[in-house]
Amino acid sequence: MKLDQIAKRFRIDKPETFKLATHDPADTAGLSIDKGDAKDLLQEGIERLSDLQEKLYADNRWSVLIVLQAMDAAGKDSLIEHVMSGVNPQGVQVFSFKQPSQEELDHTFLWRIAKSVPERGRIGIFNRSHYEEVLAVRVHPEYLKAQRLPDKPNGKDIWHQRFDDIRGFEKHLARNGTLILKFFLNVSRNEQRKRFLDRIDEPAKRWKFSIGDVTERALWPKYMDAYEDAIRETSTPEAPWYVIPADHKWFSRLVVAAAIADAMEGLKLEFPKVEGAALAELEKARKLLTEERDQ
Amino acid sequence: MKLDQIAKRFRIDKPETFKLATHDPADTAGLSIDKGDAKDLLQEGIERLSDLQEKLYADNRWSVLIVLQAMDAAGKDSLIEHVMSGVNPQGVQVFSFKQPSQEELDHTFLWRIAKSVPERGRIGIFNRSHYEEVLAVRVHPEYLKAQRLPDKPNGKDIWHQRFDDIRGFEKHLARNGTLILKFFLNVSRNEQRKRFLDRIDEPAKRWKFSIGDVTERALWPKYMDAYEDAIRETSTPEAPWYVIPADHKWFSRLVVAAAIADAMEGLKLEFPKVEGAALAELEKARKLLTEERDQ
Repeated sequence: MKLDQIAKRFRIDKPETFKLATHDPADTAGLSIDKGDAKDLLQEGIERLSDLQEKLYADNRWSVLIVLQAMDAAGKDSLIEHVMSGVNPQGVQVFSFKQPSQEELDHTFLWRIAKSVPERGRIGIFNRSHYEEVLAVRVHPEYLKAQRLPDKPNGKDIWHQRFDDIRGFEKHLARNGTLILKFFLNVSRNEQRKRFLDRIDEPAKRWKFSIGDVTERALWPKYMDAYEDAIRETSTPEAPWYVIPADHKWFSRLVVAAAIADAMEGLKLEFPKVEGAALAELEKARKLLTEERDQ
Repeated sequence: MKLDQIAKRFRIDKPETFKLATHDPADTAGLSIDKGDAKDLLQEGIERLSDLQEKLYADNRWSVLIVLQAMDAAGKDSLIEHVMSGVNPQGVQVFSFKQPSQEELDHTFLWRIAKSVPERGRIGIFNRSHYEEVLAVRVHPEYLKAQRLPDKPNGKDIWHQRFDDIRGFEKHLARNGTLILKFFLNVSRNEQRKRFLDRIDEPAKRWKFSIGDVTERALWPKYMDAYEDAIRETSTPEAPWYVIPADHKWFSRLVVAAAIADAMEGLKLEFPKVEGAALAELEKARKLLTEERDQ
């Protein structure tokens, strides 16, 4: 499928040379389609995902972990809504990681993450994730202080230690049957400004907005540096990052749906075969049921 | 809406006179519609639920707990798939309660349930539930034995104690902002037989079937007695049971969707109003964003 090929282009396969600035948030890979066509294409993508999820559940060997990271208003929530509505909710688990609770701060930063990874046969979606620990926490030194780490964290080392912890954690998950895909929805600063203004103007969305969203914008360059470093350091074959242009929501949704479906197809999922003794038992059950008198 | 009225008819408002035998599993409340119309009607119901879920999330005071109980092949899983796909998965949490683990058996029977109740703003769906403790456990004395209760449980008393525990637990949830709706999908023994035979014949579903499903059928009358007693004892104004005819899947899906939507509408959910100081802050944010130079 053409969209699968497009999705692959946004996967960071050579992290050592990764530069965020070379990625255009308004890119649409030359695709120019109208709203109706985009909707139809997305519907196809959702149906493909829905079929794959059914097989994932039946196959019962793999789980799928989708990590979504982005600046505010990049479209994480609406992407989850539009790409994952239509997939059986029994097979999808969404976790939103917010400001850590006191109990969570009393453990390592991977504790609450490890508790929330998807079960075998399910798709788990992280709306924000452990990556906040090398993004928001890096940009806000006061958050790090609140974690009360015993050794005075060394500014130079702590982030590389965290990258190393994260790589190790994700490798462990991958080795034990988790397909991991990580998406950075790359929205431009100007598009964020427009979307914030839209939110303020729309009464049904207004309550979601806080003045903190605006002050956080001042840290934009620091966030971009932190994202670049994180993506460079944690893009691995077993847990790749995709940098998805997000100024056009229709495009980011199509590409994310295609990337997930393409990777899941690579798992060669199968419905369990019923053969041998199990098949004989099934025949016995059929006989019992057929002979039973109607109630 | 007409379906809302139909749904109300299946709610057990007078539990003291409840007799399961008077409920026809093939009832369709006089509705006779073709497949296409049923699909359109269900789509309307899903959109209504989807809008209500968005408000539930924004309102952030209530959570909704849906309990689904039924004999095998009554259509619980497919009901979850067909009624809840289309609702934002970020707002829906499905829990399937299977055979308890050793850790779960080392706690009271409500321990694992209490850990899984939905968060404020979410719809939680229990695919099986604490009711198995007065259904499967009642029908299978060996399950009760495995729970190693300290006092030799008195056959007469233990079920009434459990009903009392459940009523108390549900009352506690309701008092603290949980809307509780419980559905028994009432399938006939003969329809179950047909569906089992279909499963055996369909290769993609065959793996789901086990000979245990057939032997369990022998306990049908005991299960019906246990269901009748449980519904009678635990239908309360704050956590009502609905006995839904389930021989026609299109009908049970429509009625369950309508019952949930109707009850959620009763909560008078609202988007939070932004006024006073919050509105002034919003205006300040608008000013800041408007004056900002494009990046």
